[in-house]
Amino acid sequence: MTDYHPGLDGVIATESSISDIDGEKGILSYRGYSIEELARKSTFEETSYLLLLGELPTKSELENFTNQINIYRNIPEGLLFLLKGLPKNSNSMNVLQLAISSLGSFYPIPFDPQELKAKKYDKEYFLNISAQLIGSVGSIVAAWNRIRHDQSYIPSQDELSYAENFLNMLDNKNKSSNLINKIMDATLVLHGEHTINASTFTAMVTASTLANPTQVIASAIGSLSGPLHGGANQKVVKMLDEIGSKENVKSWLDKTLEKKQVVWGMGHREYSVKDPRANILTELVQELFKERDGKVSKMFETAICLEKECEDRLSKKGVYANVDFYSGILYKEIGIPTDLFTTIFAASRTSGWMAHWIEQVKDNKIFRPTQKYNGETKRSYKEINDR
Amino acid sequence: MTDYHPGLDGVIATESSISDIDGEKGILSYRGYSIEELARKSTFEETSYLLLLGELPTKSELENFTNQINIYRNIPEGLLFLLKGLPKNSNSMNVLQLAISSLGSFYPIPFDPQELKAKKYDKEYFLNISAQLIGSVGSIVAAWNRIRHDQSYIPSQDELSYAENFLNMLDNKNKSSNLINKIMDATLVLHGEHTINASTFTAMVTASTLANPTQVIASAIGSLSGPLHGGANQKVVKMLDEIGSKENVKSWLDKTLEKKQVVWGMGHREYSVKDPRANILTELVQELFKERDGKVSKMFETAICLEKECEDRLSKKGVYANVDFYSGILYKEIGIPTDLFTTIFAASRTSGWMAHWIEQVKDNKIFRPTQKYNGETKRSYKEINDR
Repeated sequence: MTDYHPGLDGVIATESSISDIDGEKGILSYRGYSIEELARKSTFEETSYLLLLGELPTKSELENFTNQINIYRNIPEGLLFLLKGLPKNSNSMNVLQLAISSLGSFYPIPFDPQELKAKKYDKEYFLNISAQLIGSVGSIVAAWNRIRHDQSYIPSQDELSYAENFLNMLDNKNKSSNLINKIMDATLVLHGEHTINASTFTAMVTASTLANPTQVIASAIGSLSGPLHGGANQKVVKMLDEIGSKENVKSWLDKTLEKKQVVWGMGHREYSVKDPRANILTELVQELFKERDGKVSKMFETAICLEKECEDRLSKKGVYANVDFYSGILYKEIGIPTDLFTTIFAASRTSGWMAHWIEQVKDNKIFRPTQKYNGETKRSYKEINDR
Repeated sequence: MTDYHPGLDGVIATESSISDIDGEKGILSYRGYSIEELARKSTFEETSYLLLLGELPTKSELENFTNQINIYRNIPEGLLFLLKGLPKNSNSMNVLQLAISSLGSFYPIPFDPQELKAKKYDKEYFLNISAQLIGSVGSIVAAWNRIRHDQSYIPSQDELSYAENFLNMLDNKNKSSNLINKIMDATLVLHGEHTINASTFTAMVTASTLANPTQVIASAIGSLSGPLHGGANQKVVKMLDEIGSKENVKSWLDKTLEKKQVVWGMGHREYSVKDPRANILTELVQELFKERDGKVSKMFETAICLEKECEDRLSKKGVYANVDFYSGILYKEIGIPTDLFTTIFAASRTSGWMAHWIEQVKDNKIFRPTQKYNGETKRSYKEINDR
């Protein structure tokens, strides 16, 4: 029996080879590759393959995997009908969760614990199931956004990358620039995996019962929906909206720091230096600013000003803008509805969740921790009239 | 840093006052009350109240709580429409999960972390939210069973208890006997809570992100759906079906024990004596046998015979029939479709899950255990043509 650590803080829950964080040096790596290199040189599809199987794919491996994902970027008719039947003001994370729960109703997502036990599943199997989930999530998000606005469904286009296609399915009229596609792809790479946080841990616990992968991902989405977990970049936008303009930044920050209130998107529990994911996004923010010739939204201006102000005042305490700060303002600036941010996080993290699903089921032990009972000891039932 | 215990076996993940197990003495208690007393004297509604708030309700408290549950036993029109749109052969646990995910689309299930932080939530609030979930789950299961068989939806009837109403909503033509209602109610009480297993732990982890309770329950359902967790009583029925008749029991058992294969429904990792929940169900099995004048199904006969045979051969090793053995054969004998067993388990366990939700959010710390990284160390990206 060990001591009790609330939140299992510091308790080892698994051995894993998927990702690693060095918070003091500001390093995040997927399978040994630094996140900076991957975000600059790789793509979401390639990085997903790496996360799932541990190695970068060859050309033909990547082609096969991409083709599989592309199949599932098309939403089955029945699922479209289901989405159309939902109230238009439904919470996007709930919609995503229920759509994933329903996937098995529309095509088989086979997972047989007996086959697993007999080690009949090979890497092709794991890749294919993962492609089903990865391909589905992004398209469900985009389709839902069209449907809730009474707009027609935009089919997936095989010649587009995952990032491009996602933006296209959201709205095919405003063609994205190369830079915007790069921003979308880079944020998907950056959010793909981040060791064992609450949603990944939820995925692992659900996986350990040998539940179907649709159930694993649906559970993880439930966990990610919590405001302590997945919604930070949405809060950044809300905060910037409250600040209103760059002229208000200084006085707002004075007040907020004085009251010891939260500046959303600043600092990260895992890093005592700058979040390595934020470094890459800073560059993309600057490129976007340049591409738009400085003609950016008021919110974007406010954000840039807030970031500089925080850098001056907070960086000496080891507090820097994190990935959520930049992904929030970038998504906003490229026109993505704020309430979809967490669903996009889910689309990206599905790769990490599936990687943990594979790792979990390949060497499985069901999670069943114990408790310290601190309740009533033996007492006798009293009839209701005697209470 | 602690040692690594796969599955967090033996690791304390929480302090809890909800339920307690003494596996050596064969005691399971909810809030200090033994499960035997509750199953004999209480009801599912009363036991749910006890699990949620820690004390047995007074008459008026119970009446209020029951009235609240009864409101949510009615399925909103929009949700019925959603269920009708699903393919009829959908997996029942997936359907239950997606229906729970969708609840917030049909009526508000308010949970505001700011209100929670300000301690503005009182016991009425927690009871009401719990009643919404508890009331919904059973009716969704019953409604789905009607819909998938192209039968009309049977509305909830306020004058019926939860157990009676559930059976009635499944099929109002075959009126249940008092004994059958008692069996249904007792199994709901018995499955209401069982300390920290994988689904309850999933609920706790999801709750710790301050996700909405619909998301908490949907995640837990995902975890319960795994064959290592929730499906044991369904496997009992499948096994009895394979044995075929009481004449085959001895030879089947000889073969199975010789091959060291599993006898489903026998033994329980938590108990070294007989599962206390099984004791109560044994009596109900006997009463049902008596009420039917011995005219029971072949499967029921086979089960009784298998149980005796196992008692003779396995009880000296501390292996006895467990709760799943009896709940499986009882559900089958009273005409419940086998693939609904796990969904009924979910209906019952929703009380326990909500009790853990309340306990978690009242004194919350987000779950974020750590990992032992055993993967690749720093390596450099290679362009795809160089791999």
